[in-house]
Amino acid sequence: MQASPIRKLVPYANAAKAAGTSVYHLNIGQPDIPTPEGYWNALKKSMPEVLAYGPSQGIPELRRAIATYYSRSGISIDEDDVIITTGGSEAVYFAFMATCDHGDEVICFEPFYTNYNGFASMAGVNLVPVTSSVENGFHLPDTEEIESKITEKTKAILICNPNNPTGTVLSPEELQTLSRIIQKHDLYLLSDEVYRDFVFDGGSHLSILELPGIEDRVIVMDSISKRFSSCGARLGNLISRNKTVLDAVLKLGQARLCPPTLAQYGAAWIYHHLSEDYYDNMLKTYQNRRNVLMEELADVEGIFFLKPEGAFYATIKLPVKDAEKFALWMLTDFQYNGETTMVSPAAGFYATPGLGVDQIRIAYVLSDEKMRKALKILKEGLKVYRDTVE
Amino acid sequence: MQASPIRKLVPYANAAKAAGTSVYHLNIGQPDIPTPEGYWNALKKSMPEVLAYGPSQGIPELRRAIATYYSRSGISIDEDDVIITTGGSEAVYFAFMATCDHGDEVICFEPFYTNYNGFASMAGVNLVPVTSSVENGFHLPDTEEIESKITEKTKAILICNPNNPTGTVLSPEELQTLSRIIQKHDLYLLSDEVYRDFVFDGGSHLSILELPGIEDRVIVMDSISKRFSSCGARLGNLISRNKTVLDAVLKLGQARLCPPTLAQYGAAWIYHHLSEDYYDNMLKTYQNRRNVLMEELADVEGIFFLKPEGAFYATIKLPVKDAEKFALWMLTDFQYNGETTMVSPAAGFYATPGLGVDQIRIAYVLSDEKMRKALKILKEGLKVYRDTVE
Repeated sequence: MQASPIRKLVPYANAAKAAGTSVYHLNIGQPDIPTPEGYWNALKKSMPEVLAYGPSQGIPELRRAIATYYSRSGISIDEDDVIITTGGSEAVYFAFMATCDHGDEVICFEPFYTNYNGFASMAGVNLVPVTSSVENGFHLPDTEEIESKITEKTKAILICNPNNPTGTVLSPEELQTLSRIIQKHDLYLLSDEVYRDFVFDGGSHLSILELPGIEDRVIVMDSISKRFSSCGARLGNLISRNKTVLDAVLKLGQARLCPPTLAQYGAAWIYHHLSEDYYDNMLKTYQNRRNVLMEELADVEGIFFLKPEGAFYATIKLPVKDAEKFALWMLTDFQYNGETTMVSPAAGFYATPGLGVDQIRIAYVLSDEKMRKALKILKEGLKVYRDTVE
Repeated sequence: MQASPIRKLVPYANAAKAAGTSVYHLNIGQPDIPTPEGYWNALKKSMPEVLAYGPSQGIPELRRAIATYYSRSGISIDEDDVIITTGGSEAVYFAFMATCDHGDEVICFEPFYTNYNGFASMAGVNLVPVTSSVENGFHLPDTEEIESKITEKTKAILICNPNNPTGTVLSPEELQTLSRIIQKHDLYLLSDEVYRDFVFDGGSHLSILELPGIEDRVIVMDSISKRFSSCGARLGNLISRNKTVLDAVLKLGQARLCPPTLAQYGAAWIYHHLSEDYYDNMLKTYQNRRNVLMEELADVEGIFFLKPEGAFYATIKLPVKDAEKFALWMLTDFQYNGETTMVSPAAGFYATPGLGVDQIRIAYVLSDEKMRKALKILKEGLKVYRDTVE
């Protein structure tokens, strides 16, 4: 198992900070938006005498609140279809464990969220990559190309929609294509929909829960981390209408006893009480940041990426030979008025060796003003790096 | 993976409650002792603007507090030797993953904490049981018997000390024996020491961290759940002085990003501030409950177990053919003045089929008064069951 490309440069960032350089973090999807006040109030009100184990599948209040949240989007799920997990991370791991045996294969589209590697490795599952390309905004490749990777060991196709690390939102037609493929080859469709409320430019998100005819084959993995700025709560959920899958997940859940108890009351409050305004403001905030990103990088020669459609990431081709060396150099050898910018090298998001070596992932999770500064520094660094290093 | 024997009867308990019967829970190690007030105050004081990801290895405050806690027992560990986990559960899973490849074997002594099965299954590890017996208080069998189970696939020996589900505390001599065996056969020694502060009758606990000559071979798994009545916090830790092990564990930790953030501030407060008085009172409380258990069951014909030396469990042989049937019957067919008692069938704590079928595990986590009532009901039920069912 490899070290996380999102975190592997952290020691160098820490060294830069220790030497007095400020670091703008565009490397990690850690939102800066305040956690809703109501979350904290709900925690304070829910502090029990004994902080006991909760149910392995999560507290009923939260499971019900999530079902209600989906019903507001016209998606009908029962609270029994929801299992609360310790972060979206655990939901992904449980989905692999529930659908695959050791040595089975799951198809996913590279670049993909690097931590899938860790969960696949833990579950003994081989991730089989199908490459999507920066040139068409990382949308799905041809059906033939996807099908060519299916073997008798393939158990599922995994997507992340909206996508981390690319910001791509799959179209209804692309989802229909996947639906046809999984039915034809008798597979599960696993969808990480953590960013489902982050679709820009008036677009809307189509969940795999809404695809007709494959109700028994879909598993959604979700989390409160990004949507509600509460990464540290470690609360996610897994949704399935397949009772066999749910039973398997519950057994895994029983092994680890329960997700964190107190935070679930906060999360239930959030799902029940946050207004449309909250979602609208959040969406507008990230969309503006995406626009800042487009503006600031528009004029840089040799940089290429299409406008991200959702989430809060972009995978960007740089005019450098080795983006990891560049990202490292930004921390160890460069500063601009005492500041520098940290990004994630994108090669770690690809499974195929050699791909993405000239790409970085940017998480646009800073205020517009900070984003502009961070990107100016990045551009300045890029210029110096190309002039003096490469 | 099997369903948890601790939780599998829960639907029947719920049905009994729905029908108006009160249920005394002696089936689950959920302490009734209030979570320390300072824990809640620390949470309130630590609520940040953004509930962000923390470090994958846990916050420095908590790692330092744990090192200090051990130093008070004369055990010298560095804060870098400590990795914070999402419950003791995750520490066990990480220990398996860090020491074993898929298909490797870990020796453990049955009956053992049933959830080890789940983690072993997830990690692709085969647990190889060595049977300990109720007749000698579940102390270790002969060295020859242990060594006879070691194969070329064996990577570690796992103990739980003080023991769940038996309440047994291993003697320094028994630990020395294990130390010799693991050195001779080049193995790791994994010790679940969640109950390390629960050793009765003036005895003291010897941690495997104190065994000389095997510093590189030991991994301790710990948790705040039982010691500080905070099972729902989902915070544990893994301690090792072996850098290779720590590196592997950190990579696993990075995959799941971080343990719950806020609860770590509460836990750090607990480790730093709880006084000797707190530990003394807690120990006295559980020791009294153990004494109540001994008194109440002393006069029951056909019941056999030796006095538990620590933790808050006892594994007890009953004069019935099938203890699971009896435990189920207590919930579905018996009540005494509107009340009944729930226990865990012990067969699920054994890996060898057919063992422990006439045994139950009792968790003595209720007040003395409730314990007496619950045990009186259990005795009454046992009498009726033997007269009318068996």
